[in-house]
Amino acid sequence: MKAKPTILKLGGSAITHKEKPFVANFFVIENLAREIAEANVSPLVLVHGGGSFGHPLAKQYAINEGLKNSSQIIGFSRTHDAMNVLNRLVVQALIEHNIPAVGVAPSSFVLTKQGRIEKMDLDVVAKLLETSFVPVLYGDAVLDLDKGFAILSGDQLIAKLAINLGAERIIVGVDVDGLYTADPKQDSSAQLISRLSFRELQRTLSWAEKAKATDVTGGMYGKILELIPAIEHGVRTVIVNATKRDTVRKALRNEKFVGTIIEKE
Amino acid sequence: MKAKPTILKLGGSAITHKEKPFVANFFVIENLAREIAEANVSPLVLVHGGGSFGHPLAKQYAINEGLKNSSQIIGFSRTHDAMNVLNRLVVQALIEHNIPAVGVAPSSFVLTKQGRIEKMDLDVVAKLLETSFVPVLYGDAVLDLDKGFAILSGDQLIAKLAINLGAERIIVGVDVDGLYTADPKQDSSAQLISRLSFRELQRTLSWAEKAKATDVTGGMYGKILELIPAIEHGVRTVIVNATKRDTVRKALRNEKFVGTIIEKE
Repeated sequence: MKAKPTILKLGGSAITHKEKPFVANFFVIENLAREIAEANVSPLVLVHGGGSFGHPLAKQYAINEGLKNSSQIIGFSRTHDAMNVLNRLVVQALIEHNIPAVGVAPSSFVLTKQGRIEKMDLDVVAKLLETSFVPVLYGDAVLDLDKGFAILSGDQLIAKLAINLGAERIIVGVDVDGLYTADPKQDSSAQLISRLSFRELQRTLSWAEKAKATDVTGGMYGKILELIPAIEHGVRTVIVNATKRDTVRKALRNEKFVGTIIEKE
Repeated sequence: MKAKPTILKLGGSAITHKEKPFVANFFVIENLAREIAEANVSPLVLVHGGGSFGHPLAKQYAINEGLKNSSQIIGFSRTHDAMNVLNRLVVQALIEHNIPAVGVAPSSFVLTKQGRIEKMDLDVVAKLLETSFVPVLYGDAVLDLDKGFAILSGDQLIAKLAINLGAERIIVGVDVDGLYTADPKQDSSAQLISRLSFRELQRTLSWAEKAKATDVTGGMYGKILELIPAIEHGVRTVIVNATKRDTVRKALRNEKFVGTIIEKE
């Protein structure tokens, strides 16, 4: 592959209606598809979260706790099916904008061990990129070598993809503007952090860990933790609001945008 | 894995309306899901064809000729997307009948070379079977190491799955009753062959090859050719009419059924 890929995460909270099970936010999906088409970045890998498609079923059947009783089995099937439905909505919107998107199901080729990626052969994804396709992966219910099955988050996936594909950058699209000095939903004096070094991030996270109850990162704590290996690897990572018009397009084009940039330095 | 798996093919001609693009035969799909649930065979792998979902797009964009010009790229995306839609309809019907079906996309983990399977890691499929899931694979548009992309037929897939998973038997569900002594659509004296040895099959095929224009196998020539490696490997193969009520259930249960049995002997 000539150019280093860009990895764009479309957060489940952005592309679905969080409080409404199995309801996609078609307005945001359509808008993102248009912006991705306009930005015309290549090679590009998309990864989306589960939002209100994956989470209710995963929770109902306790998929992430692993296989403990046979009644969970059908729940795994239903969780993956729901994720596939959301994936299809995203892929279809992209195709409508003439983006050669190909849904790639993590459950078809990834195995985890205690919830961590153990086996992930990226030959197909690399070949898709080489052939100028846009692979669209997603957080998924996957089989686990130790506990039967597990939930593979989109965030764990993007960090691994970024490292193994030698990505240039990660753009994480969520439903907030980026990282804040405090939780903006709790504290009106919270300020958006526009740039953060890896060292500063580590300090913030160790502080956040101590005060888990009040997640100072504005709900971003778990996500950022997953991204650390990629950031440490040198992959420039930006966090932007995917629900705010033109933000993802500007980030993709390296134009000035509102968000948080995290760099190793 | 303890027991040897059964591989059941649901022909595209059975589960879709051949002449109506993108129209599933919900009556047949629903009926098959019920019969598969009733038969309760495990381990079980399902593979379905493309029928009127895959074929029109694959043809329109000449996917099987490989990547010759960039206008085909979006066609590959559309062909896979259409196959994924059909897969989802099948999986959903199975889940409704409490069968723990998991769609497994060949394009996510198979690579071909000149249209023949070159790379297919079955760790996920084997693990699904071990965990008592029913993997549901399908004929798909896949990436090809030589020609960019290709169509992987469900028939090529089942032969390879049968050999690599050490399957006990293959049941091929189509929209005719089995193999005939002549094309039943052309010749009213054509008789259904209820049992065929591998040697007899080879004789029939070499004769069929010479008379390609009038496919004596009743449209089954290409399918059977793909199954030969599995039959030669010793996998008992039966051909049944998946559109005729109770036939697939009887075949799954090893009860007396109308169809053609092909054995190595």
